[in-house]
Amino acid sequence: MKLAQHAPIGVFDSGIGGLTVVDAVMKTLPNENIIYFGDTARVPYGIKSSETVKEYSLQITDFLLKKKVKMILIACNSVAASSKEAIQSRAGKIPVLDVVYAGALAASAIKRKHNLLGVIGTLATVASGAYEKSLRQLDSSISVFSKACPLLVPLAEEGWTDNDVARATLDIYLKDFKATAFDGLILGCTHYPLFKHSIREYFNNDELEIIDSANSIAEIAKTYLEKHDLLNPEPAGRFDCYVSDKPQRFQALAERFLGKPINRVEVVNMP
Amino acid sequence: MKLAQHAPIGVFDSGIGGLTVVDAVMKTLPNENIIYFGDTARVPYGIKSSETVKEYSLQITDFLLKKKVKMILIACNSVAASSKEAIQSRAGKIPVLDVVYAGALAASAIKRKHNLLGVIGTLATVASGAYEKSLRQLDSSISVFSKACPLLVPLAEEGWTDNDVARATLDIYLKDFKATAFDGLILGCTHYPLFKHSIREYFNNDELEIIDSANSIAEIAKTYLEKHDLLNPEPAGRFDCYVSDKPQRFQALAERFLGKPINRVEVVNMP
Repeated sequence: MKLAQHAPIGVFDSGIGGLTVVDAVMKTLPNENIIYFGDTARVPYGIKSSETVKEYSLQITDFLLKKKVKMILIACNSVAASSKEAIQSRAGKIPVLDVVYAGALAASAIKRKHNLLGVIGTLATVASGAYEKSLRQLDSSISVFSKACPLLVPLAEEGWTDNDVARATLDIYLKDFKATAFDGLILGCTHYPLFKHSIREYFNNDELEIIDSANSIAEIAKTYLEKHDLLNPEPAGRFDCYVSDKPQRFQALAERFLGKPINRVEVVNMP
Repeated sequence: MKLAQHAPIGVFDSGIGGLTVVDAVMKTLPNENIIYFGDTARVPYGIKSSETVKEYSLQITDFLLKKKVKMILIACNSVAASSKEAIQSRAGKIPVLDVVYAGALAASAIKRKHNLLGVIGTLATVASGAYEKSLRQLDSSISVFSKACPLLVPLAEEGWTDNDVARATLDIYLKDFKATAFDGLILGCTHYPLFKHSIREYFNNDELEIIDSANSIAEIAKTYLEKHDLLNPEPAGRFDCYVSDKPQRFQALAERFLGKPINRVEVVNMP
């Protein structure tokens, strides 16, 4: 059976952060229908064990498969780091792309002087070493150093990405990076693009590349859909949001992430 | 059937914060056996809907009842605010005490000049108005104003309770309180006692009472057990910890909360 061109792309995250991926997909592939699932009852994943994250991720994969998606985008670094293979195996021939691979691919392509890349992410993502593994597979010569920044997610959800608290937090987390000559910083969590401006200001270094997986995964998705003749030929895509809890809070935060109103957010009970 | 004197006291929280209650109970009732449950797979509760919090709380209540506890202490303000009655009804004749009532009781007893109390807590606790209701039942003349401080929980878990980030955060959350003449501030979240020192420094007002429910609930528990002849007559209580995920991280954080080593943390799978 051939996948349907008009079928939606499924995007999911532990909560709200994956909407930075939705934003990039909407801009890169404006025709596509998108289904987003945010596991707001069980967020955050970044402090959970990989077994728990895998179990939750497969439940969400089943939900998206029932919605007959033509592609799944894992818009959560903690999920990508721990559960990519399990999700691909559950999804069968439905293609599964993830933000870790996308970020690593974009990072491996930048011009390097020091051959050193930095990664920041949640505790789970950094502990998994997923970016190091992915980068090494792409180019075994690259060195990587990483740092968990657990407070950035709650800061982003509070909307504090550019105030005294954000600056003091970045100063603590990024101090070691500042003391080092490196080529690029991978934002290894889908919330972190909201700090892009403050991070750039903190380093005050025009040569430093800041790599955000959202644009990269949207480009990879586009290339895949083109190559497999799966682009939606009809104009104007639909966007449906599902969450496991607190739709009102999601809607308010989502409108901050996407910078535009959202029509409807539906609650789905997870097991 | 009479409850057993040697039976443990069950204490639970969404995660680690309730250990401030355990600490107070250990000091006030050193003979008692204590069972602690931290729902680390599903933390935080403070951003979840009251329906979800109630469902999770009843699952934990069932777990504690199976362990034959003689009393349940709800050491989570978000649970107390939304689910106290449901838990008491599930627990039958096992007494259920909670931190909201305990905090309100302690606050209603302080000497008042302005007849105004402040409450800080999670989004869920503040939205519930539980402290206002409890205080009004105790003394209808008291006025209350409250503020949600969602970032304090992740800050406490990062161990940042007394650095530049903590001070900048407290300055944003507590600014309105500073501009007001009030008698006492209720720490309406079991993580917040870790900020007591920084909060006191911020207000720099010796007359301001800072009310921490942990000591209050321990005193109420003691009075109840004495009155019902349920105190454990044997010396030296046991302390057993159960969590739903990530026992190692819990153990490290718990040792910071209690200021002493913990023998064993066991994982229990929640539905």
